[in-house]
Parts: sequence; structure tokens; C-alpha cells
Amino acid sequence: MKAVVWTGKNEVKLQEEPMPKIEASTDAIIRMKKTTICGSDLHIIHGNVPSVPMGRIIGHEGVGIIEEVGPSVKTFKKGDEVLITAVSSCASCSYCRRGMNSHCHTGGWMLGNTLGGTQAEYVKVAHADSSLYPLPEGIDTGALVMLSDIFPTGLECGVLNAKVSPGGSVVIVGAGPVGLAALITAQLYSPSQIIVVDMDDNRLAVSRDLGAHHTINNSSGIADAAKAVLELTNGIGCDSVLEAVGVPASFELCQKIIAPGGTLANIGVHGTSAPLHLEDLWHHNISITTRLVDTVTLPMLLKLVVAKRLDPSKLITHRFKFSEAEKAYATFGAAAKHKALKVLIEFD
Amino acid sequence: MKAVVWTGKNEVKLQEEPMPKIEASTDAIIRMKKTTICGSDLHIIHGNVPSVPMGRIIGHEGVGIIEEVGPSVKTFKKGDEVLITAVSSCASCSYCRRGMNSHCHTGGWMLGNTLGGTQAEYVKVAHADSSLYPLPEGIDTGALVMLSDIFPTGLECGVLNAKVSPGGSVVIVGAGPVGLAALITAQLYSPSQIIVVDMDDNRLAVSRDLGAHHTINNSSGIADAAKAVLELTNGIGCDSVLEAVGVPASFELCQKIIAPGGTLANIGVHGTSAPLHLEDLWHHNISITTRLVDTVTLPMLLKLVVAKRLDPSKLITHRFKFSEAEKAYATFGAAAKHKALKVLIEFD
Amino acid sequence: MKAVVWTGKNEVKLQEEPMPKIEASTDAIIRMKKTTICGSDLHIIHGNVPSVPMGRIIGHEGVGIIEEVGPSVKTFKKGDEVLITAVSSCASCSYCRRGMNSHCHTGGWMLGNTLGGTQAEYVKVAHADSSLYPLPEGIDTGALVMLSDIFPTGLECGVLNAKVSPGGSVVIVGAGPVGLAALITAQLYSPSQIIVVDMDDNRLAVSRDLGAHHTINNSSGIADAAKAVLELTNGIGCDSVLEAVGVPASFELCQKIIAPGGTLANIGVHGTSAPLHLEDLWHHNISITTRLVDTVTLPMLLKLVVAKRLDPSKLITHRFKFSEAEKAYATFGAAAKHKALKVLIEFD
Amino acid sequence: MKAVVWTGKNEVKLQEEPMPKIEASTDAIIRMKKTTICGSDLHIIHGNVPSVPMGRIIGHEGVGIIEEVGPSVKTFKKGDEVLITAVSSCASCSYCRRGMNSHCHTGGWMLGNTLGGTQAEYVKVAHADSSLYPLPEGIDTGALVMLSDIFPTGLECGVLNAKVSPGGSVVIVGAGPVGLAALITAQLYSPSQIIVVDMDDNRLAVSRDLGAHHTINNSSGIADAAKAVLELTNGIGCDSVLEAVGVPASFELCQKIIAPGGTLANIGVHGTSAPLHLEDLWHHNISITTRLVDTVTLPMLLKLVVAKRLDPSKLITHRFKFSEAEKAYATFGAAAKHKALKVLIEFD
Repeated sequence: MKAVVWTGKNEVKLQEEPMPKIEASTDAIIRMKKTTICGSDLHIIHGNVPSVPMGRIIGHEGVGIIEEVGPSVKTFKKGDEVLITAVSSCASCSYCRRGMNSHCHTGGWMLGNTLGGTQAEYVKVAHADSSLYPLPEGIDTGALVMLSDIFPTGLECGVLNAKVSPGGSVVIVGAGPVGLAALITAQLYSPSQIIVVDMDDNRLAVSRDLGAHHTINNSSGIADAAKAVLELTNGIGCDSVLEAVGVPASFELCQKIIAPGGTLANIGVHGTSAPLHLEDLWHHNISITTRLVDTVTLPMLLKLVVAKRLDPSKLITHRFKFSEAEKAYATFGAAAKHKALKVLIEFD
Repeated sequence: MKAVVWTGKNEVKLQEEPMPKIEASTDAIIRMKKTTICGSDLHIIHGNVPSVPMGRIIGHEGVGIIEEVGPSVKTFKKGDEVLITAVSSCASCSYCRRGMNSHCHTGGWMLGNTLGGTQAEYVKVAHADSSLYPLPEGIDTGALVMLSDIFPTGLECGVLNAKVSPGGSVVIVGAGPVGLAALITAQLYSPSQIIVVDMDDNRLAVSRDLGAHHTINNSSGIADAAKAVLELTNGIGCDSVLEAVGVPASFELCQKIIAPGGTLANIGVHGTSAPLHLEDLWHHNISITTRLVDTVTLPMLLKLVVAKRLDPSKLITHRFKFSEAEKAYATFGAAAKHKALKVLIEFD
Repeated sequence: MKAVVWTGKNEVKLQEEPMPKIEASTDAIIRMKKTTICGSDLHIIHGNVPSVPMGRIIGHEGVGIIEEVGPSVKTFKKGDEVLITAVSSCASCSYCRRGMNSHCHTGGWMLGNTLGGTQAEYVKVAHADSSLYPLPEGIDTGALVMLSDIFPTGLECGVLNAKVSPGGSVVIVGAGPVGLAALITAQLYSPSQIIVVDMDDNRLAVSRDLGAHHTINNSSGIADAAKAVLELTNGIGCDSVLEAVGVPASFELCQKIIAPGGTLANIGVHGTSAPLHLEDLWHHNISITTRLVDTVTLPMLLKLVVAKRLDPSKLITHRFKFSEAEKAYATFGAAAKHKALKVLIEFD
Repeated sequence: MKAVVWTGKNEVKLQEEPMPKIEASTDAIIRMKKTTICGSDLHIIHGNVPSVPMGRIIGHEGVGIIEEVGPSVKTFKKGDEVLITAVSSCASCSYCRRGMNSHCHTGGWMLGNTLGGTQAEYVKVAHADSSLYPLPEGIDTGALVMLSDIFPTGLECGVLNAKVSPGGSVVIVGAGPVGLAALITAQLYSPSQIIVVDMDDNRLAVSRDLGAHHTINNSSGIADAAKAVLELTNGIGCDSVLEAVGVPASFELCQKIIAPGGTLANIGVHGTSAPLHLEDLWHHNISITTRLVDTVTLPMLLKLVVAKRLDPSKLITHRFKFSEAEKAYATFGAAAKHKALKVLIEFD
């Protein structure tokens, strides 16, 4: 079969790979229909994700059709159309029982990480019964691919952790796909003010289209950006501060614009430590949260998509055939230049 | 009247000061009966609390008798015995309505900070109706002095913020009076394991007497202490990590011993930033909290003291007359040498 | 001054009454600008509210201008425009500290109940500092009158108590003004399905305009209505069931259409007991809640109105001058005939 | 094999029955070591549980040794010692994902209800991986039998649903084994006052031994009992009211003794409806909850037992061999006469 393989620094190749096989009785093999590229796939090919060895088939998002199931799989059978979650979950370990699927004792983020991924004609999914969802009828499957990872990530790591709530104020630092998914899902909770900060004017324009009340270009540095946010909030800062970049400067900005009693929800993938200004914050009654997405909100997001209250397809800017996967990477890797948000990859 | 005044670097003097006067109609003047010295009083006289000017009467804990009330005070009258909270609260501003008395628009930590404090024969308390509590009958008033600050601090900033819960694991880093108040109040929520870390063997012995299941002397550094905590917790760390010291090394230790899904509740007063290891923690599903005590749990603590389920007097190791206040400071300032926890100061 | 007084069974008169006077130092006298009539005012004049004596000036909603304040009032002064809450709150008693203003030891629902009300040229409001809100600029004051009672009631007693949440299913039984306020505020939490049940086709049409996905006319009885709700919900019932009528039949219907794990939030004012079918519900993992509005959500609602995310004026169907107050009662008392929802009464 | 079978009105027989067999691949067969009789077993043999057909092997509590597992069972193997939960859970359906194992689409209360039960030499348990727990070492297995049902029931349906919390007031109506398990687990949350109401003086004496601060014999009727509770609570009633009887009179008593803002948590199994006094309670800001135990707290309870903070064996008053099972029923069926709480049945 054909698959996208990480082959070198900033390099992927679409090449022939062996078919995955059922190993555990709870596995399923899925023939892929649609997938996409995630910001963390770029982190991988830059060599910044230590758990991923070179030579790995990457990708952890997508929809497909069940090709084969292990003997213990109860819920799905060959031919079923399914949505794949980025995080595999056994459902019954102590972490899964607490809704922390990301820390599942025998699951977690495996696809395109510790196992072969979804940017391939076939993929093996562990714990199939509790890691796949049947596709609802009548919904564009491209939109559903957005639910494998970025919408649950924006919602769980960002919106829910930051306790976005009716009448509250929200600032999202970083308007990449995950930041924008947070922007869209934040509106499920009716805050009265949403500010988006980014260095790319196109993404700020998109943010305004997607519901941001104010946008700030922080190209001139965090001091200016902090000042602008404070001016918009009577000098108080925001109740909910979402970090969706993953670098120390951005995390420092977030600390300057959090209101007393507020929450700073980290979504970004960080490679280094950042200073925490406890000398300013020890008496500020704030919370800081981190989270690897658990995809526990996926059932709720599916209901909202089916009810037409949420349209995740808004983030899809480009579509490629699977045979063009390398071009898709080139486009997504130069996202600003191409005004790319999410690139959808469709199999024949 | 006589009062304890901050007069120089590491120096207080018991000296003559003018009597406080009712200014706002909601003020009350209280004749002090008992007070104590807080760790933050030592921070003040070291010159580390920028809001306090030299020459200030310090102290923010105590019980006394109402001497005079402003015309708007409804709940109290001359002669009533009252417990003073460290944090004054108007009750009706937006922060007070959210239980964030520490950020009250016209209150907060005023006593011995922005106003004269309780280490004086008389003290003025703002927002008297909502910042004083009537003394319950039949309870030792020395025990009640512990409720002005350290017990609410240990409980609110530590135990509640860290979500201590039945069956959970807890580590408290720092066994000073506030850490020990956290140790005592943590047991209200029945964790299955409580570990205390400190450099002073006497305080660790006290911790064991007060209910710690394990104690660790971290004199040999944070790496050893982290290893010891991980060994006690199957390599996972603790659900609830309470920082009760206020220095970067201690905060770094806390980051090494927090379980996935856990909470690091900062209690310590910090003068500098500390590195936050987001490269390790971004996917660890944790929370970090900070808080200046709001004393909103004071009514609950009073009920437990009255019901004999909580005995705050356990932390009182020394008693002085007010005329010996300077000696009390000397003793508390060299706490390890004197095996001092809380020193009670009694007025004639 | 002129005031609307309850003078007999189903009878009010607009008549001359003595001016209210400042008694407590925290009182304020307000010259009314706009008021409205509440369903509970009809309960009163039907003689069904035992706490209200005949001869009482009624009404508990409105906006006005401060005429005079007691000496302890800090926040407001003569000439300030204010929104009056239906529930007076001292802010500092144990109930107010818990957000249960309705049970304030010296407040609660006083206006037009245990004290003279707002359907008068002047009204006295107790605990002015914590029971009045400054009017935001640029907002139609008629819309703000809706925030005195029915919007907080629909939100607090209905939407919040019933835990309406993204993706959830909601049924509102009763589409009077409070049920419709619940319908509007439910949408702040993005449920995927909202069903409204009522006997009046006009109100059902209004419900659809205001966002209901399905409406059911229950004129043919609760068995048919229950069947219809179950058909819309795969036989499971709804997660959030809001009772906004106040009669046993309606409360019984609610019990038949609640999903396992759901909440039945009672909003209705009940005059008799209703059977609770514990034989069916004991193992159904449900909650039932009751609440007298606390108006603690008023600041949040104001923020949403100011941010143009909420328009409470949608419920105003009729406008009268204060001199026409008796006609306003006649219209509101025959609401179905007049297709009346809220009737706004404006003073000169 | 031998098994206890419901054979007629108030009649069980220990008789020969066919061995259970693995049917689903997730089943396990367990050789029983210890079991007990539950109040709901008495309800069954009285003919009051419609889901149970005559001829059923009953019982849903116990510990045993794995005899055989189906091919999909991963966690357990032949020879493992296990604790059986009363409620079987697939872990991955929408209800299990919400912690509502009692409503599992393919599980729930099956043992001794819709399937053969644990009062037999062998029992089949469905969804073995997520419905059994390994036995901790060094803990008396008799104590652990108490965790199959009554301790989770008292804790989940009673203590947690009623929001028992530090400093709060609690009343438990009904001091049978489940009421007493609630009494013991309530103390994990440090309320300041616990009142127990029952008609049996022996059970009230046991309640005092187990931590009740006050006990009330309600033989003279609910009016007297209500008066006594109100006298103990300054006329306010209790924050947490636990109904552990299951008859209308008891449920009516609970409504009379609930404080504003309180919660009435129903634990009792009810066969008929009870009047709900909405005319008194509509403005009382209360919650009423129902729940079939989900046993989701079992891991937490195990931790507390292992940590010696909880001793469930306190409720065991009688021990029988399995060959004496009919005598065990006679004793438990006349519990008051025999001062019986839980009767432990041990297999050879």
C-alpha cells in the first residue's frame, strides 16, 4: 500500500509500505477515505517529537471504512464507515475511567506516533470499540475529519480548561487551525468578548469572520500586544486566556493579560521551559492548565455538527488527492504563504 | 497606645502610636485581646513586601472586643467579641460576589499592609460587617486566632485549590505554619496518602504527629526529594501538590512530583519567577493554581472548631505578653532554633 | 403619589398612596421610569400568595432614577439611573455569601410582597448598594426591565439548574414569559435540541421564532405530549427538563420525559403538591431542583446585553402609560387573547 | 453446583443448578469465596422487583477466584482473586463514559436480576475486564464483600449526591446497612453534624458507635421526628438529607427537614409514588436526587480500605457457611430480632 513516511529532516515521501495487520483482538484495520495534516505532523518531520522514529507512517486524523476487525471487536464490522480519533482509548483503565484517554495505560496518542498513522491507504486502530465512532448520515465527511483532533483539542485543552463562560472575556493567542477551532467552539459558551492575537493578518481576518470581536497583530512584540489587550479590557485582562502557539514569548504574553480569577489554558506544544512570573501571579488567584487532548468531547461535537450548530468544514482551505500528499505537505508547511488552514487529503 | 511598628531592616519596635479613628461609616475600632505573627510579617520586615511602608503598624490576625463602630455598621456593637479576618471584604463588589474577597475593590489585605495592623492595642477594621465574625462560645480564643489567616490560607490556597479528595495522594512541600495548616485541613477530605517534605527534622516530626503518612527531608536537594516521592507513589507522583515555601527550587520540585491529572497549588509568597517546564508538562493534563487567601472558608472552619472536629491550637508553641512582642519576633524569626510554629501574643 | 394596589379578588386599582420613606440607612427611594407586570403579580391578585396582604402596592421589576439614599448607601447617589432587582440582598449574610440572595436574612423577595412595590411613582429599595445596578449606556431601558426578574428566573431556576449544556437536549414545558426567557437563555449553552410544550399555538409559534427546534401542543393531555417528546428523542427523553407552568399535570409530564442522568428544573410557582413517581425514578439517576430566583446572574446578563448577544426586548409585546396600568393588567390577565407576553409600563 | 434460588413468596432454596457457561467473549466464570445478602434480595423474594423471574439464582455481591475467562478478557486469568461489582459495565457506551454504569447499554444490574447471581458456587460475570477488581493484598476479604454494593451505594446515591461537605449538617433517615454505609462514608467529608433517624433502638445505638452525633427514634411519627431534627438545627433543617428507607412516609419526613439550599438524596428502593410538596419547596432552592449505584467509587473505596482509613467490616454481624444459606436468609429477614446488619456467607 502507499503511505506518507517521515524520511528525513523536513521531508516526507509517499512510498510503498507493508499493509498493517490485526495483532490484538481489539484492533481494526481501516481503509482510509479522508485524512489531513496536523501541526504536530510538522513538529514530527522537524524532528521535535522524540517518541516518533524516522521511517514512521504519520498522521492521526481521518475517516475510513472498516476493512477487518479483531475477534473481540463488538461494535463495528467490515464495511462500517468510521471516524478515527487521534487518541486511542481502552475505556476501562483508571485514566480512561476519569476521562483522561490521552493517558490510557494501553492507548493514548499512538497513531502516527508509536504506531503507523492515517496518512496511508490502510491503518490499524487499537481499541477499536472505544476509539472509533460511526459516521452520522448526511454529514460531509471532510467536516468530520476536523473532529479527529483539532476541534476536540481547541475545545478540551482550550475552551473547557479555560472555563469560557457566558458573559466572560476570552483571548486566544495564536490563530492557527487549533486556535481557530478554539475560537469557534468558544462561542458555544457565549462569552461577551473574544480577542485573537496573531502575527498573520490573513489569519486575523479569518478570525474576525469566524467571530472574534477584536484582533491584534503582535508582530511588534508582547509588550505592545499586552497593552492592546489591557486597553480592550479596562486594564483587567481576560478571564480565559488560551495559548495556542507553544513558545515562551507567547506564554509570557498570556501571563500579562490574565484577569484576577482567570485561567490560562495552554494548548501549544512546547519544546522548552518558560518563565512563570510567580512574583506577579502568586496572589492573582489564577489557574494554568495543560492537556493532551482526550477526545472525550467528540460525542458532543458530533451532536452539534448533526444539529447544524457547528460547521468544522470552515477551516478547510485546500483539498488534495492522496497521490498529491507531498504537495499537500508543501502547502501546509508554508501555510502563511498559501493562506492555508486545514488541507484535506482524499483517497480514491 | 502601644503598637508593633516596622522600624528598619529586620527590626520592629513596640512603641507609642496614635489611636486609630473611625473614618468610613463601615469601620470598627477593636481593642485587641490576642494576636500572632505571620510569616508574611517577617517578609515585611525583611523589606520584601513593596506595598508596606516603613513605619507601619503590622499584623493581620487576632481576636478582640469592639470599642466603637461607624454609623453604618449593623451587625456589631461596642463590647462584642470578634474574630478579625486578614482580608477585609465589602461583600458586594464583583470580586466579593465571586468569593474573591482578596481582590475586593475597596478591601483585600489591608491590615498591617496598607493600613495599621493588629499588633497594637487598638486596630481599625474596614467593612466591619463583612470582615469580622462573632466569637463562638466556649472556644479557646487562642485557637480562633489561627483562623484569621493561616487555616483559611492552608485550606483555600492549598487544600481546596489542589482538589484534595478521598483516596487521593497529597504532598506538601514546606512544613511551616501554613504548610501544617494545610496538612491538618487536608485530612478533612480523607486522602489515602499524605507526604510532607521539609528541611527541618523537627517540623517533619510534628508533621507525622499531625497526620502525615510519610516525611522526606529535602536537605540533599530536589532530585533526591523527587525520587523519594516517586518511590512512594509507584513512580506516578501525587494528585495534589502543595507548594508552601515560595522559592524557585521548591516550585521546581513540585513540578517533578505531580501526577498526570494532578494539581499544583501554590501557597508560597514568591519574590522571583521560576521556570515552568512546559516541555515536560504540556501533555501532562495538570493544573497550577495561585491564590491570595479570601477567608471565605472561615464560617466552615468555625463550624468545625465548634463541633470539635478541628483543633487549630495545635500549632501554638509559644505564648507571650504584648509587652514582650519584640521577644516574640525574635523567637518566631529564629523558628527552627526555638522549634516555634505559631507564637501567640496576649494583651492585658 | 399614584400606585397600583391590590384591592380585591382579581382586582387592582391605580390610586393615591403615601410616598415611601427612607427607614434603614441602606435604603434608597427611586422614581420609577419603567416597570412591567409579572405572572406572580397575577398570582397575588388571585389571592394565592399568602405573604402579600390586600392593600399592598405590587410589582417587583423596573428601572428608575435615584431620588434619595440613606446615609450608608455608598454606590449610588441622587440622579443615578438604576435597574432594580426583584430580590433584595444584603450581600454579607450566610445565604448571600452562598449566592442565595433569595434567602437573604434581611432581604429576599420584598418588593410588592412584604414591602410596597415598583408599580408606583416611587418605590423604596432595601440594601440599595447590593440590590441595584447602574444602567449601562446606550441600551434600551425597556429591555433592561426584563432583567429585573424573568431573565434571571429563566436562566437560574431553569437553564442553570437544569444543566443545559452543549449538545444536550432540552424540553421546556410552558411558553409563558419565563419559559420563553428560559428558551432564549438556554441557547447561551448551545444545546443540540430544544423542544417547547404549551397549549397555546401562538406561544408555540413565538417559541419557534425564538429558537425552539420542535414544538408540541399538549392540549390533548400529558400522555400524548410525553409520547411526542419521546418520539423526538429516540425514546430516551431530555437531559434538561424545565417546568415553567406550576401545576401537578405539568410536573407529572416532566417526570415522563426526563432522560436517565437528566435534571428536572422547576420554575413554576406551585400551590399544591404533585405526585413524585419514585417507583419509576428511584433508579433513573435524575435530579429535581427548585429555586426562587437569586438574580445572581444579573451582571452576566448585563454583559451579554451590552455585547449585543442577548436581546431581552423580544418578549415585549405591549406598551402602556402608567396611567393605563389597569388596562395593562386587563391585557396581561387575558394574555392568550391579546397574544401578550410582557407588557411594558412607562412613567411620564 | 449448589445455588440459592428464589422459589416462592418469601422463599429461597439452596438447590442444585446447572453451571454457568461463558457465552460472550468478555464473560468470566468465578468460583465464589464469599457473598452476602442485600436488602434488595429481600425485595426480590417478596416479589417486588418485576425484572426478576421466579427460579432465578440471586445475589450480586462477593469475592471469588476466576475459573475461566472468555477469549476477549485481557485483565484477568484463571486463578486471579477478584471483587465482583453489583453493576456490570462495558466501560465504553455513552452511559459508562459518563460514569453511569448502572445504565450501561449492555450491562447494569444484571447479577441476581436478569442473570444468575452470586449466591452460588459459580457465577458468570459479563464485561469481566471492567466489572471485576483485583483483590488488594493483606485485606480481609469479608470487608471487601461490603464494597460490591452497599458502600458504593451509601456513598454515591447518598453522600455524594447529597453533597456532604466539611462543616455541613447531615441527616440519614434509615439505619439499615446502606444507611450505615452512608453514615460511615459521610465522615470522609467531615460534616459538623450527623443525625440518624430510625425506629430501631439497636440500630440507633450502632449509629452512635459509628459516628452519629445525634439519633432520633421516629416510632411516634414523622411530625415528632421532623420537630426533633429542626430543634437540633436551629429550625433550619439539614444541608444533606439522605433517604435510606424507601417508603412515602420517610420521603415526606425528608422534605420537612431539608434546609434551604440543601439536597435530598434518595437511596431507598420505592414501590409507590410519594407526594412532593412543591407548594412548600418551589422557592426553597433544593435538589432531590435519585440513583441506582454505579460503583464508580469502588477504586477510591479500595484505596481507603488499603490505607486503613475505612473499615467496612464493621457492618458484618453474622457469618454463615454457604450450606447454611437458608438460615442466613432467615436471620437477615428478621434483622431487628437478630440485631443483624450484614450477614457474611463463606464458601468452602
